[in-house]
Amino acid sequence: MKGIGFALVAKDGCARRGRLETAHGTVETPAFMPVGTAATVKGMTSEALADTGARIVLANTYHLMLRPGAERVRALGGLHRFMNWPGPILTDSGGFQVMSLSALRDVTESGVAFRSHIDGARFELTPERAVEIQVMLGADIAMTLDECVPHPRPKDDVARAMRLTGRWAERSKAAFVATPGHGLFGIVQGGSFEDLRAESANHLVRTGFDGYALGGFAVGEEKAVMLSVLEATAPLLPADAPRYLMGVGKPEDLVEAVARGIDMFDCVLPTRSGRTGQAFTREGALNLRNAVHVDDPRPLDESCACPVCRGYGRAYVNHLVRAGEILGSVLLTWHNLHYYQDLMEEVRGAIADGRFQAFASEFAAGRADAGAARAARARGGR
Amino acid sequence: MKGIGFALVAKDGCARRGRLETAHGTVETPAFMPVGTAATVKGMTSEALADTGARIVLANTYHLMLRPGAERVRALGGLHRFMNWPGPILTDSGGFQVMSLSALRDVTESGVAFRSHIDGARFELTPERAVEIQVMLGADIAMTLDECVPHPRPKDDVARAMRLTGRWAERSKAAFVATPGHGLFGIVQGGSFEDLRAESANHLVRTGFDGYALGGFAVGEEKAVMLSVLEATAPLLPADAPRYLMGVGKPEDLVEAVARGIDMFDCVLPTRSGRTGQAFTREGALNLRNAVHVDDPRPLDESCACPVCRGYGRAYVNHLVRAGEILGSVLLTWHNLHYYQDLMEEVRGAIADGRFQAFASEFAAGRADAGAARAARARGGR
Repeated sequence: MKGIGFALVAKDGCARRGRLETAHGTVETPAFMPVGTAATVKGMTSEALADTGARIVLANTYHLMLRPGAERVRALGGLHRFMNWPGPILTDSGGFQVMSLSALRDVTESGVAFRSHIDGARFELTPERAVEIQVMLGADIAMTLDECVPHPRPKDDVARAMRLTGRWAERSKAAFVATPGHGLFGIVQGGSFEDLRAESANHLVRTGFDGYALGGFAVGEEKAVMLSVLEATAPLLPADAPRYLMGVGKPEDLVEAVARGIDMFDCVLPTRSGRTGQAFTREGALNLRNAVHVDDPRPLDESCACPVCRGYGRAYVNHLVRAGEILGSVLLTWHNLHYYQDLMEEVRGAIADGRFQAFASEFAAGRADAGAARAARARGGR
Repeated sequence: MKGIGFALVAKDGCARRGRLETAHGTVETPAFMPVGTAATVKGMTSEALADTGARIVLANTYHLMLRPGAERVRALGGLHRFMNWPGPILTDSGGFQVMSLSALRDVTESGVAFRSHIDGARFELTPERAVEIQVMLGADIAMTLDECVPHPRPKDDVARAMRLTGRWAERSKAAFVATPGHGLFGIVQGGSFEDLRAESANHLVRTGFDGYALGGFAVGEEKAVMLSVLEATAPLLPADAPRYLMGVGKPEDLVEAVARGIDMFDCVLPTRSGRTGQAFTREGALNLRNAVHVDDPRPLDESCACPVCRGYGRAYVNHLVRAGEILGSVLLTWHNLHYYQDLMEEVRGAIADGRFQAFASEFAAGRADAGAARAARARGGR
């Protein structure tokens, strides 16, 4: 195997059921990747993470180059050994984090210079260095360096950043030496402009990558805009390569994006929400800080079979969250990740069985019903 | 079985190998109880806690009466179900926490009135109410309310508090209705004064309890003083009842106390130290925040078989601790609790084999050697 492998197992409308082959194992798609920014999915041991059903995790070039340093991770045997995760790892290139976290960044044709958000130290990231770092980390899937612009921005700015991202993608590909089971993905940019997205996609496809990501979404644009840009852009990407929607999203967003041909996702939502008291359930999100749960012995999600729902009740999680106990974050993160993985498994099953459209409709209706029931209870004073 | 059962399995010098029978299972002694103050051993799921080898955990009347409330825990099915811990639970009476945490406390013959450290709400705790709360929680072992005085204090003050604790113990016993597998322990007070400790012990033994605790240690007195008071007091307690040294201590303290006839311990040290970057090892404690670990792939303790030591290295834990990652606290807590349980298992084996004295000497020598080696490395500039 040269690079990574990807095979389509089934199609249902635009939704795709696939299989990604990497140096560290196989990933069934559509797949959700938990975010392990600093080489840790916050609060989760790797055993617990595997228990949720996660098969691939995401780590971040920006965070790891600052601390503990890519050379150090390589000397320690690579990221898989370092964080005790035997499965596939995708590393983001750091482009988004340079823009959102660091200070005094300076973007030139060559790359981006910035100061660390940790200690102000000066760093430089070029497309070549971003590839080098990801290879040192041992990523199964590396991402090309991209320039992410905030939303909204004038079209000229978005076009300039997209074209720079395209030239960086070419340099990234030139710097990347393909080895078995390791691949490089290009990142489509272009904001909410369908013509810019098309130009970006076409350019990347001509350059040729193991997979194609859609970046620069979930930055404040309308949900409908994201979905219509996705709908227009996904068909421009090769059918035989995986498509990855970066940083998205809520459960309903994943279902909508799968319907438009997306295969891979990452998002901090299940983990970050877990640390702020929120549980995802089949009936929508619950805020466990809320006093309504204080005497409720039921599990977070009555139709969930995860270890958290089998062992602990809402009243207990409410107690932990209110008391600021670490275990509250741990249990909610664990359950939320399990929920996301269960959802993706249902999605995969529905595509394989040719009933994805029905699944997506039922999923949306179930959440609307639950939302209406909650609103009614709220009006009734509960 | 009325109350709890206790049987001595072996003796070696003053060290005792025993078996405690409770409503929720058997505990081999000497035993270390992890501290789950607010119905959670911080950062540990109950499955992880059981994995460390812990068989009994401690929870706290003071914390749980304030939040979420004993009546609420009872309505939710009791503490075992609430915190998803199927094994035995010992609850402290709250006497120590009222003194150390609450504001505006007012001790009278009747009991203690105080304000919550959480929200300033006014509470009262009498010996009878402390028993009632612990019964509502469903504790396998309840403790009598005691008055704890800070150290040092004039002998008159210590004597007054000890005698009040004795009268409260009588009232506690009168209020406690023994049920199978549930017991009540009295608490010996008297500070560093052997005669007061003897008076307290004799009074409690005449009153009669399922077990006897030694409270008011590890409050700032010299280690040698604690050991000599233990040595004088333990023989005054019935040979056929368990003896519990409250709030102690470091690994070496446990070994020294077992040598003086103690059967049970609790201490926040393995959990609290885990949250501040410290690992207990067979060669003494390590501070994982220290830069010396930054490139060290070795496990926390090279002779430990816990899941943390099997999967993760010092460099990774150092990275987590420096980055303020939750998983750093979780992994260190897990390992430290495993270390304490392993130590107690070795202690039990040594007593059963009649080689406890040799074990204790080797244990002390091993730590002294490791300490000398560390000092030498420090002098050498490492």
